[in-house]
Amino acid sequence: MSYVAPLKDMFFALTELAGIDRLAGLPGFEEAGSDTARAVLEEAARLHEGVLAPLNHDGDRNPSAWRDGAVTATPGFKDAFRQFAEGGWQGLQHPADYGGQELPKLLSTPCIEMLNAANLSLGLCPLLTDGAIEALLTAGSEEQKQRYVPKLISGEWTGTMNLTEPQAGSDLALVRTRAEPQADGTYRIFGTKIFITWGEHDMTENIVHLVLARTPDAPEGVKGISLFIVPKFLVNEDGSLGERNDVHCVSIEHKLGIKASPTAVLQFGDHGGAIGQLVGEANRGLEYMFIMMNAARFAVGVQGVAISDRAYQQAVGYAKERVQSRPVDGSAKQSVTIIQHPDVRRMLSTMRALTEGARALAYVAAAQSDLAHRHPDDATRAQHQAIYEYLVPIVKGWSTEMSLEVTSLGVQVHGGMGFIEETGAAQYYRDARILPIYEGTTAIQANDLIGRKTLRDRGAVAASLLTQIDATLAELDGHPSYRSSAAFQAMQRRLAAGRDALDNAVRFVVEHAKSEPNAVFAGGVSYLMLAGVVLGGWQMARSLLIAANKREEDPAFYDAKIATAHTYATQVLPRAVALEAALLGARQDEGMLALREDQF
Amino acid sequence: MSYVAPLKDMFFALTELAGIDRLAGLPGFEEAGSDTARAVLEEAARLHEGVLAPLNHDGDRNPSAWRDGAVTATPGFKDAFRQFAEGGWQGLQHPADYGGQELPKLLSTPCIEMLNAANLSLGLCPLLTDGAIEALLTAGSEEQKQRYVPKLISGEWTGTMNLTEPQAGSDLALVRTRAEPQADGTYRIFGTKIFITWGEHDMTENIVHLVLARTPDAPEGVKGISLFIVPKFLVNEDGSLGERNDVHCVSIEHKLGIKASPTAVLQFGDHGGAIGQLVGEANRGLEYMFIMMNAARFAVGVQGVAISDRAYQQAVGYAKERVQSRPVDGSAKQSVTIIQHPDVRRMLSTMRALTEGARALAYVAAAQSDLAHRHPDDATRAQHQAIYEYLVPIVKGWSTEMSLEVTSLGVQVHGGMGFIEETGAAQYYRDARILPIYEGTTAIQANDLIGRKTLRDRGAVAASLLTQIDATLAELDGHPSYRSSAAFQAMQRRLAAGRDALDNAVRFVVEHAKSEPNAVFAGGVSYLMLAGVVLGGWQMARSLLIAANKREEDPAFYDAKIATAHTYATQVLPRAVALEAALLGARQDEGMLALREDQF
Repeated sequence: MSYVAPLKDMFFALTELAGIDRLAGLPGFEEAGSDTARAVLEEAARLHEGVLAPLNHDGDRNPSAWRDGAVTATPGFKDAFRQFAEGGWQGLQHPADYGGQELPKLLSTPCIEMLNAANLSLGLCPLLTDGAIEALLTAGSEEQKQRYVPKLISGEWTGTMNLTEPQAGSDLALVRTRAEPQADGTYRIFGTKIFITWGEHDMTENIVHLVLARTPDAPEGVKGISLFIVPKFLVNEDGSLGERNDVHCVSIEHKLGIKASPTAVLQFGDHGGAIGQLVGEANRGLEYMFIMMNAARFAVGVQGVAISDRAYQQAVGYAKERVQSRPVDGSAKQSVTIIQHPDVRRMLSTMRALTEGARALAYVAAAQSDLAHRHPDDATRAQHQAIYEYLVPIVKGWSTEMSLEVTSLGVQVHGGMGFIEETGAAQYYRDARILPIYEGTTAIQANDLIGRKTLRDRGAVAASLLTQIDATLAELDGHPSYRSSAAFQAMQRRLAAGRDALDNAVRFVVEHAKSEPNAVFAGGVSYLMLAGVVLGGWQMARSLLIAANKREEDPAFYDAKIATAHTYATQVLPRAVALEAALLGARQDEGMLALREDQF
Repeated sequence: MSYVAPLKDMFFALTELAGIDRLAGLPGFEEAGSDTARAVLEEAARLHEGVLAPLNHDGDRNPSAWRDGAVTATPGFKDAFRQFAEGGWQGLQHPADYGGQELPKLLSTPCIEMLNAANLSLGLCPLLTDGAIEALLTAGSEEQKQRYVPKLISGEWTGTMNLTEPQAGSDLALVRTRAEPQADGTYRIFGTKIFITWGEHDMTENIVHLVLARTPDAPEGVKGISLFIVPKFLVNEDGSLGERNDVHCVSIEHKLGIKASPTAVLQFGDHGGAIGQLVGEANRGLEYMFIMMNAARFAVGVQGVAISDRAYQQAVGYAKERVQSRPVDGSAKQSVTIIQHPDVRRMLSTMRALTEGARALAYVAAAQSDLAHRHPDDATRAQHQAIYEYLVPIVKGWSTEMSLEVTSLGVQVHGGMGFIEETGAAQYYRDARILPIYEGTTAIQANDLIGRKTLRDRGAVAASLLTQIDATLAELDGHPSYRSSAAFQAMQRRLAAGRDALDNAVRFVVEHAKSEPNAVFAGGVSYLMLAGVVLGGWQMARSLLIAANKREEDPAFYDAKIATAHTYATQVLPRAVALEAALLGARQDEGMLALREDQF
């Protein structure tokens, strides 16, 4: 099934919702207005539609393969990655000083969406490389930056994040990999890392592993973890490749999805020790890793949007072709295409509403990040940074959980054919399932949303977002279309109820998290999902207003936007009150909190 | 991962909720009280835990294989099926006259649950055979019954249902397979059938295909479809096997899940015509097929319960072993098993609440079927039949959709390990995905619930169930525990809200289905899910009352039941209002109903 980048909706979100032209007024982004956006996105679409998307199903049928320590990527991937790299796409958001394009995150975000919609497995390689680049730029020495970053940006090399060990997943305090200091200032690394995405492959000549490990005198727990560069091949002073380092891929995992993306078990130091360089200061590794991780978390949220859109496109294509049964309203005597059946419409419309809502929220978040980095005013920067940080766990957690629903509906639209692997819908269902797990499970995102993003400022950022929603509600209320439009009325009613539910949730969290941590954290995922439903709904309400105002300019597009906002209001927003009840109800729930282990 | 039949909860549902001892008062069921139930279930548990469950993962890794028209089942399956057959399990609910045990459906239901929890792929073979037996008993001639039914009941042969063709899935009006009458009274069958579960295998010496086809003079559409017996090997007068019939398996599907269950493409008549016998009258095939299908639909609902329980057991096992992170409440300085973390408890408790609610509803439905068949009073029988028929699409649709959520949570509990196939959690996630599709998708169930089960009696059966819920609500309200129990209060509040939502939904459907069919059918799945959430909640409320009253008899069990009912009230029942909003909101939703095809 082919993929067509949803350029029109992407432009809508970029320009109308996220305000790309406002970013073009910021220092360093002068050239990054909507004209540039259009040119970049069209070029990106050509590559991803034409080169990466056609390989997606191949990657599932013919995954990366391990043999004698070497991993061979799916045929075609190496060449596709080369085209991606040569097009400069790895460097889109990275500094010009190291060969990047230095474009706003808002502009790189739709490109990341296209990449992952086209080919989620292949998209993971640049995603991890982005993380490695960010960590080196933040914490690396100038010499390290010069040696590694340009090659990563050019796509000559790729990067990895080595966190997880068999006993240390969500809990990095348990990391055991050792780093022994050597006389020459380097370290010898010993240990086993698992779940290393693209940890070994043949697409590039070198791989730069960033590895969490402990030095001999490090304190216990997360405060004793340091970050090391461990390249697959050592890099000489002149940048040429030296000896093979002592890091080896001993196996790759047999996974439910993203099969083309090799998930490596890496063994460090079985032959004398892998040579590593300390990045930044010792014992600050976790802090640096969080830089990578925060960028990656946002990108994984965008993966959720991406795979949802791909699943939607496939389902629409099938629903327009497949003929089955007469219409329930008796409007035809013959069987019709299934897109004419009301339940298929419900499924497609819900898929679309969720996808567009999550896309809008992600793009708006990206713009906040750009404002936080580039705005000349300190206080304004801080404000936008706080909003961005509040949104990251929501974009990551909600968009990815949402993608499970969308890809499942995608299978359902196909009926029995959806269960047959050749159809392709099942691959999205399988691939999506990793998204709420890696880079921090949804519960980890919820913990972050509660702890660092809600309690720390006692709900201040959340309150500022609620104020903005109130303004949108007032606009809906006062709009000339309100009285005659079922969409406006439904949105006003459901968004208002959702807004109140979110307000209650934030107050509840702030009030009870310290005194009843178990109760509040038991509802954490409900709080996160509630925030996603309401904030996505807020973006759909803003879309509805814009669409109503601009309708005459492009009736087909804006009518569809109004309709999709309406579906979001009727099919998605009502969940807010159920999620609020789940959060608040968890407080006294003996089922969750009071059962003994042996009663499970 | 091993499987342990949840005998205690099964007995609770059988005796306390579904009233098995009441059934033992019915003619023919004199021996089928709770003592018999205990003996049967314990024996069933031994077989399914010990023989079928250990083969489940093998079947996924080493699926049924096709070669030159023959299908070889996963190693071990043939012997396991032989033990199943020799134990008399295929005949549990079938008439003693043909070798069955003639036990109540209520008693066969937990056995079917165990079978499918142990091994969903293998369980499908008896499930389809049950359907074939029921159709032959209802519509076959005495000679046909004598020739086929005893061999099917003994498990010497198996049965299949041949409905689907490439162009005819949900829409059987499009069936094209031809049946040409012969001078000797037989027919020659020509055509292609797809998605035939266990349509070819080596577990038994013969396979009895029941096939929908058209005779030359048949009217168009569903009123021109007849049902034929087409055995793989012809059966001689003396019951011995004759020649190989002209039906051949040309391929099997490569599927997302239930891989050990061969899904066959069957070609009839490529070598002169497959010899078939008409079952019952010509052109009444669809009616007969619905007999098979209704039995199968209920059983598929039980499969949803079964796989949910299996996924729950696996997740609990992992959560008790896996050590990761310190408690959020600071109660320990060391990392603890993840079952101690609040979000893991939320997931496990929700999985459990959904599973127990769906189990209770299915068992209560089974008892209705028994009363409908055996009660001496005509009017009482009709009443129970109507309730059973209302519940079947809900048990099928809701329990299977619910299993998608439960198996997905099961993966999530495992974190990254859940995505690794060897862990086993992913298999349940994949296997479950077929359940809301086959034997009629959830939308087909919703259409049935609206059309035949709600509109036809203008909501009378639904109203009678609401009255029963009111009685339960009054019991909660008046119970001595009410004032001191958070569980009682939460249940009372949420069930009352759910009851009102269901009431509104039924009224809405009755009022608008004729005038606005598209709007109502667009909300059909929401109506079905709402009914499932509320009726399952009703059973959990009844469970809560019983548990509170009997607590002293077995505090560990009944406290857990109270806790689980509480979780159902806080985490599941609040969805009722969101589903009501989705149903009613679909009415004017332009997104679903007014968009042109080209706007999708």
